[in-house]
Amino acid sequence: MRVRVSKVGLCSTDLALARGYMGFRGVPGHEFVGVALEGALRGRRVVGEINAACGCCPTCLAGGDRHCPRRSVLGILGRPGALAEELRLPARNLREVPDSVGDDAAVFTEPLAAALALAEACALVPGARALVVGDGKLGLLCAHVLARAGLAVTLAGRHPERNGLTGVVVEHVGPLERSGGGFDLAVEASGDPDALPALLPRVRPRGTVVLKSTTERATRVELAPLVVDELRLVGSRCGRFEPALAVLASGTITVERLIVARYALSDAERAFEHAARRGTLKVLIEVHP
Amino acid sequence: MRVRVSKVGLCSTDLALARGYMGFRGVPGHEFVGVALEGALRGRRVVGEINAACGCCPTCLAGGDRHCPRRSVLGILGRPGALAEELRLPARNLREVPDSVGDDAAVFTEPLAAALALAEACALVPGARALVVGDGKLGLLCAHVLARAGLAVTLAGRHPERNGLTGVVVEHVGPLERSGGGFDLAVEASGDPDALPALLPRVRPRGTVVLKSTTERATRVELAPLVVDELRLVGSRCGRFEPALAVLASGTITVERLIVARYALSDAERAFEHAARRGTLKVLIEVHP
Repeated sequence: MRVRVSKVGLCSTDLALARGYMGFRGVPGHEFVGVALEGALRGRRVVGEINAACGCCPTCLAGGDRHCPRRSVLGILGRPGALAEELRLPARNLREVPDSVGDDAAVFTEPLAAALALAEACALVPGARALVVGDGKLGLLCAHVLARAGLAVTLAGRHPERNGLTGVVVEHVGPLERSGGGFDLAVEASGDPDALPALLPRVRPRGTVVLKSTTERATRVELAPLVVDELRLVGSRCGRFEPALAVLASGTITVERLIVARYALSDAERAFEHAARRGTLKVLIEVHP
Repeated sequence: MRVRVSKVGLCSTDLALARGYMGFRGVPGHEFVGVALEGALRGRRVVGEINAACGCCPTCLAGGDRHCPRRSVLGILGRPGALAEELRLPARNLREVPDSVGDDAAVFTEPLAAALALAEACALVPGARALVVGDGKLGLLCAHVLARAGLAVTLAGRHPERNGLTGVVVEHVGPLERSGGGFDLAVEASGDPDALPALLPRVRPRGTVVLKSTTERATRVELAPLVVDELRLVGSRCGRFEPALAVLASGTITVERLIVARYALSDAERAFEHAARRGTLKVLIEVHP
């Protein structure tokens, strides 16, 4: 289905792809809100799940469409992305945006869904102690999701001034070295390949580490402590859009406050340069605002 | 409680400790069978869980005694091991050996318990496809446990002639490169720090990798595929002795066939040299045979 693109958010994956990660060539962009030009949702504001699965392979039939081996991924793998006048996604990927959710907030459906996918990676036990490493866009959303689920969240990163931006204040300790230890759960959301070795000793025996961000460089890690302490290391990528839209519609998260700049599509190159500056939160590209 | 040591098995951890791993100094040895000299089991043949926990800290009270931060570990951490005339363990660590289990088999209680602990690391789903990397002592026991649990096991290693030694024949493919892919579960039991990067691409999305062996060197690994495929990496160490003794008593495993040499305690140095030769299965030291 054709979608007229309204706004697009840039994320670290877009920047990595631009540097050559995954060998992607073509139109980037996967965080978008737009207006459907075809189908049952024609004329409605929509967002879209980025994994376009075949729908008929064993993986898809078992409910694993986000891992369909034949999938294309909007602006990431074999499918032109959202940084264009229009994009195309299968009808089943599109979700109508509730009236109460503005376009700025709707652009965050995809990253918020990714943060909410923490609940698929491990049990979110209220009262458990969670460490989130990285106070960038994804780290802030992960900290928000965990805090709303009732966990006691410690956030490590270089930007204590960002604490509370999303509407939830957590414990912000600054650099990871100040976080203490004994955490039940740790979330790697910094994108730094050296973060994992540094956070492993901070997790209690049989605790869980969720890797949320992809890193382009390999990581050198001692595996013996992981065996001795019987840790669980879980990779986590995309999430479902429905719960993310429900959270946005509930008004309990102020994602718009993560937006730091807006550019026209014709200024996309400058937008990428801005987004690539260290410590930049969300940069939007407005195509049809 | 004092235990007169009958026989001791050497394992890769003993060899690593001898090379300096974990900085252990003192009497090594943790796989043993002996005769209790004190307490309720006095005069009975016993084996012993190797983690001596404090029993009263929050970790112990939550059932995590194998992870007690104040624990000593027989022949590994702060507690003299089994390569001696006598050893000491708390009474609660000792388990009587059933009459039907001979001393040779009883020496395998500890490593078999470690293999059975796979069921604590992940769900063992009958019919699931499992890859075991390493056909050494631990790998063979893991393959046995998984096959008996009804999984379809593929074993990779340098010794196809060992297939069936424990009483279960699995698919032995030789080198890991010949294993194919799409496994639901993979078990790293080779002790090779380079095995993990090689086995990750062989696991299906959302599949599980269990790390059973500790490695002394760090591993260099690309974490991005772990995130993209949402894999689960689980460290697994010691297991409970009761189920291991029950399996040994059932007669469904021929662990004795893994024994390749026996030495007297006075020949312990030669025993270590023998055990350290590449491709050596179980070397026993007989103290009071």
